[in-house]
Amino acid sequence: MSFSLAQLQRVIADTYDAKDRRRGVEGTFMWFMEEVGELSAALRGGTDQQRAEEFADVLAWLATLANIAGVDLEAAVEAKYGEGCPGCRHSPCTCNQSEKP
Amino acid sequence: MSFSLAQLQRVIADTYDAKDRRRGVEGTFMWFMEEVGELSAALRGGTDQQRAEEFADVLAWLATLANIAGVDLEAAVEAKYGEGCPGCRHSPCTCNQSEKP
Repeated sequence: MSFSLAQLQRVIADTYDAKDRRRGVEGTFMWFMEEVGELSAALRGGTDQQRAEEFADVLAWLATLANIAGVDLEAAVEAKYGEGCPGCRHSPCTCNQSEKP
Repeated sequence: MSFSLAQLQRVIADTYDAKDRRRGVEGTFMWFMEEVGELSAALRGGTDQQRAEEFADVLAWLATLANIAGVDLEAAVEAKYGEGCPGCRHSPCTCNQSEKP
């Protein structure tokens, strides 16, 4: 059983697309940031269940932004991170420790 | 061809785990926020390529935070959004438009 980034973007589009396009990128970014704030709070003091739900909400709003921007999240992340560190191209990363601590 | 959230969390762990655990959740959250800022800039004025890369960076740092917090992103997002809107349980969403514009 798996649920892919492509599936997430499709579910979000099927569920919210009309609203999302009406709201546009600026308004959607503000909703995304509200969820980022809730994730911060859950990371500081939430339960495991609350943390999982806030990660899900941040991902869902990131998928919404990607839909509006026409970005394929799965392709984007595979292109940049599929082979390990985009800086040194190694896994584990061998970048200079003082530059990226 | 696909690249799953589980694969992303594994690549990130293989590539950066020692650094990430040393840095901890607070320091990692600040790196995550830096990438969120870069995504904002790319959404306002970036090229398609820049937008894709910034979405990838935000996702990668979200995966890092999830690794540190012990959250399975794929399970979390499927549990909350796998059947459509978590509010009304419909797709398309039928929640009150004035509450969630």
